[in-house]
Amino acid sequence: MCRWMAWLGQPVLIEELLFNTQHGIVDQSLHSRMGAEPTNGDGFGLGWYGSGEGPGLYHSVAPAWGDANLRELAGHIESPLFMAHVRAAIGSAVQPTNCHPFRHENWLFVHNGYIGGLHAVRRDLMLAIEPGLFADVQGSTDTEVVFHVALTFGLREDPIGALERTVGLIEAVAEQHGIPDAVQGTFGVSDGSTLWAVRYATQGPARTLFASSDADAIKRLHPDNPRFARLSAEDRLIVSEPFSDLPGLWHEIPQSSAVTVRHGGVLEHQAFTPRVPVSAAHA
Amino acid sequence: MCRWMAWLGQPVLIEELLFNTQHGIVDQSLHSRMGAEPTNGDGFGLGWYGSGEGPGLYHSVAPAWGDANLRELAGHIESPLFMAHVRAAIGSAVQPTNCHPFRHENWLFVHNGYIGGLHAVRRDLMLAIEPGLFADVQGSTDTEVVFHVALTFGLREDPIGALERTVGLIEAVAEQHGIPDAVQGTFGVSDGSTLWAVRYATQGPARTLFASSDADAIKRLHPDNPRFARLSAEDRLIVSEPFSDLPGLWHEIPQSSAVTVRHGGVLEHQAFTPRVPVSAAHA
Amino acid sequence: MCRWMAWLGQPVLIEELLFNTQHGIVDQSLHSRMGAEPTNGDGFGLGWYGSGEGPGLYHSVAPAWGDANLRELAGHIESPLFMAHVRAAIGSAVQPTNCHPFRHENWLFVHNGYIGGLHAVRRDLMLAIEPGLFADVQGSTDTEVVFHVALTFGLREDPIGALERTVGLIEAVAEQHGIPDAVQGTFGVSDGSTLWAVRYATQGPARTLFASSDADAIKRLHPDNPRFARLSAEDRLIVSEPFSDLPGLWHEIPQSSAVTVRHGGVLEHQAFTPRVPVSAAHA
Amino acid sequence: MCRWMAWLGQPVLIEELLFNTQHGIVDQSLHSRMGAEPTNGDGFGLGWYGSGEGPGLYHSVAPAWGDANLRELAGHIESPLFMAHVRAAIGSAVQPTNCHPFRHENWLFVHNGYIGGLHAVRRDLMLAIEPGLFADVQGSTDTEVVFHVALTFGLREDPIGALERTVGLIEAVAEQHGIPDAVQGTFGVSDGSTLWAVRYATQGPARTLFASSDADAIKRLHPDNPRFARLSAEDRLIVSEPFSDLPGLWHEIPQSSAVTVRHGGVLEHQAFTPRVPVSAAHA
Repeated sequence: MCRWMAWLGQPVLIEELLFNTQHGIVDQSLHSRMGAEPTNGDGFGLGWYGSGEGPGLYHSVAPAWGDANLRELAGHIESPLFMAHVRAAIGSAVQPTNCHPFRHENWLFVHNGYIGGLHAVRRDLMLAIEPGLFADVQGSTDTEVVFHVALTFGLREDPIGALERTVGLIEAVAEQHGIPDAVQGTFGVSDGSTLWAVRYATQGPARTLFASSDADAIKRLHPDNPRFARLSAEDRLIVSEPFSDLPGLWHEIPQSSAVTVRHGGVLEHQAFTPRVPVSAAHA
Repeated sequence: MCRWMAWLGQPVLIEELLFNTQHGIVDQSLHSRMGAEPTNGDGFGLGWYGSGEGPGLYHSVAPAWGDANLRELAGHIESPLFMAHVRAAIGSAVQPTNCHPFRHENWLFVHNGYIGGLHAVRRDLMLAIEPGLFADVQGSTDTEVVFHVALTFGLREDPIGALERTVGLIEAVAEQHGIPDAVQGTFGVSDGSTLWAVRYATQGPARTLFASSDADAIKRLHPDNPRFARLSAEDRLIVSEPFSDLPGLWHEIPQSSAVTVRHGGVLEHQAFTPRVPVSAAHA
Repeated sequence: MCRWMAWLGQPVLIEELLFNTQHGIVDQSLHSRMGAEPTNGDGFGLGWYGSGEGPGLYHSVAPAWGDANLRELAGHIESPLFMAHVRAAIGSAVQPTNCHPFRHENWLFVHNGYIGGLHAVRRDLMLAIEPGLFADVQGSTDTEVVFHVALTFGLREDPIGALERTVGLIEAVAEQHGIPDAVQGTFGVSDGSTLWAVRYATQGPARTLFASSDADAIKRLHPDNPRFARLSAEDRLIVSEPFSDLPGLWHEIPQSSAVTVRHGGVLEHQAFTPRVPVSAAHA
Repeated sequence: MCRWMAWLGQPVLIEELLFNTQHGIVDQSLHSRMGAEPTNGDGFGLGWYGSGEGPGLYHSVAPAWGDANLRELAGHIESPLFMAHVRAAIGSAVQPTNCHPFRHENWLFVHNGYIGGLHAVRRDLMLAIEPGLFADVQGSTDTEVVFHVALTFGLREDPIGALERTVGLIEAVAEQHGIPDAVQGTFGVSDGSTLWAVRYATQGPARTLFASSDADAIKRLHPDNPRFARLSAEDRLIVSEPFSDLPGLWHEIPQSSAVTVRHGGVLEHQAFTPRVPVSAAHA
């Protein structure tokens, strides 16, 4: 179980969203309300686009709520696009290389949920990774394996399509091992200019996922809120669970669907349908 | 807010009490039920008597529930007397020198609660410490200051008396600063052969504290429990909150009182009455 | 023993100076050539002015050479004024609150060297701190005490003067305790627009300290070096030891002296003469 | 580059060998004299047999020289058989799962050196691991892969033979990738009652490895040394580099050879000859 958030919009000090909200992601590290567990204290990560080449990463094994460095970075780094993730480890070690977001070139990747029966399927999934990427897997999470399979299956050309093929492969492999709950969760991806998010579970309800409403709608609903006065039509948030209880701010992203957020505040919905990749059908 | 436990009895593998109980101290780091907060994830510590000179210490800033080393140590160290503490920081840094137990020579010291208005009273309390001990305070907790004041006031000769004088001083200093809730909590002390524990609050209910019943009573109540069959008349636990819901295992230690646990399973109760030390009355 | 550096000039990606130099501060964490010890692996810190309010801080107990986060931050944060410090602990704990730079409001402070007989003089020095600042000392280093004494003695109005009074006090206290080597080292201070640096030892040679030559001189000496082509007349570095062996780049700052670096590349020298503060003469 | 040591003999407080020697393994973390680099500050590990089931492990990413917990554990744990390792990372992350010793059931494994061209050969080596063990590889070191290949090739039945087959496989895979320096280093293995150590390099001189002389010889050479008076005929050390400069204490283990240390101080030498395992010849 984990929680994550992503921002695409005007450049903001990261603390505006990490700390200065009623129930932001750092608060969710201690008091998640919609997660499988209230506590997400097994490390965290921040990935942001801004100065320098490609995205920057800050990974820590400390709980987000108590990490002094996170407060410093959030208060002194501005970014128009960033992702933050708080982790609740289920089995794998608490170590920096298991912290999200994961990165490959310009790409960031986060996940909330799990791959069922990981110990049994890990080898088969690792074999599906392009050999040249095999040794880039540095940690022991399911997510990092998923990310590298997705890179192999074309994430950089077609993120949602690649994740459909990746989930299709995982479900096929799980079936071979008699594992029913192959994939559970939500995924977030970015290349620094667009955000993609997926909500899906092989079995049962998928972990929650929300998109913020468009800025105009929020302002009409809460005309006197000074924080919202600063919102621009550019701004969108994707979150595991809402940052506040105010009505009209959040739209739940349906199960088995994906969204694409582009500059200008554009939010596009589409269905998410796993498909077994041809190459993997007889892996 | 914090939680702690102390064992005095037959030598046991530490994991027996840290991990192999229904609701032990490591579980309380994630799911405390009687604490001010359910999460005690800001580091922890273990102090034990056994091989080598004086007590050993293991301090970590990681949450106890996820620390791989703690599991290893608990599974491979035997001790007839140890104390464990899980921390919920309130203001002071998450760092090893802020983890309990604190140690001086043969003595260990733990605390659950707080000194009210610490920022305001810290200087006055530090000045009450014997000058030769002043620089031994390495961290920034209230507890370490309390411990060194108590050492100054005779902890090594008369632990309960020294704590009565220490609490008396703190209340006197707090009053000078207009702080009403001078002292809150429970304290645990050991010299390697005896355990002392105090429960006290200047104002309002004090944090909870429990002693295990004597072994015979426990066995009579639960004759079929194989775990309890191993209990000897020597064994006593002092804990912030019970390790299990089984009836008859725990006795609450009353507010404003102290207990002394000696080898042989002896448990003595006494009143705890703060008194202003003469030397400090005009500090 | 430690090493530090400070940059005041055009905004640069911090990695340009931390990593992309022949013998920069991160290299000095592993291979210092002029320090008392080659290894400065007991944590490090970075303080920078840029986005957000006041300076940002990143403190880590890991050796600088191996800290993945430091590489990330250095590669993604731009700053016109920053200080970095690598630490070799002598006695005090390896913990974030012992990492330099120390901060108070807009001010940063670093130190290379030591206060002689710290355990003996710590109490007297702490008593010289303005009571309202006393509890702001969070760690156990000599440097943090020096910083708070200097704040008490007017650092924010007259940095060099305040340090002269601070060193004067330390020497007076040390003399009372029969300690000959009261103060050893170099100090760096900034308020976000000016840099001050001091080199001084009560006894024997002081730790080394260098200022970079002015940009025009460097360019004349090395007209074909592409890195130096980017240097502007604004740029100045203050370092514990030179970042390269190229001739003409560095000027040693004499013992018992101080420098002030202002915007525009101005570098002013002055003598540094400890003086016992009146208030402390009879402390 | 790394350094390691192993003790098999009478039960001793671990600090006797880690700290209370002229040039022990902790000193080697800061000042190695025979290693490829003087500094081995990228984490360390301790594995010991004693109380509790199987070996205990303590892994830390801090440099061994500054880790307060290591001093505590070493001063309070007694063991008749333990291994310690200080790490100098070459490429892979500084994280607990990359710290030696590695463990499988009752077995401990350490390594000093490297597998050449790891990024290129990692996938092929991982494929040689028994599928049921594949997901047990938690970190990203070459050593952990070597260990799991060796387990696959019969380490638990015939440690030296399994390592000969493992090294044979690695050399075969490396050759396919055009990598000349397939294997470099020394390996240490134990099951809790016997120690095995190997010194071997595919190319060039292998990392150093030494065995302590038998106790009688040491006592005859240094009859007045009180430390050696406590040595018994049971005691043997295997070390990357000698703990002291005293003559007659250490015997270099020749290249391309292995030793077996058994209870009673028995030390057996044999040749070490890599052989390509049949199953892997056409992997």
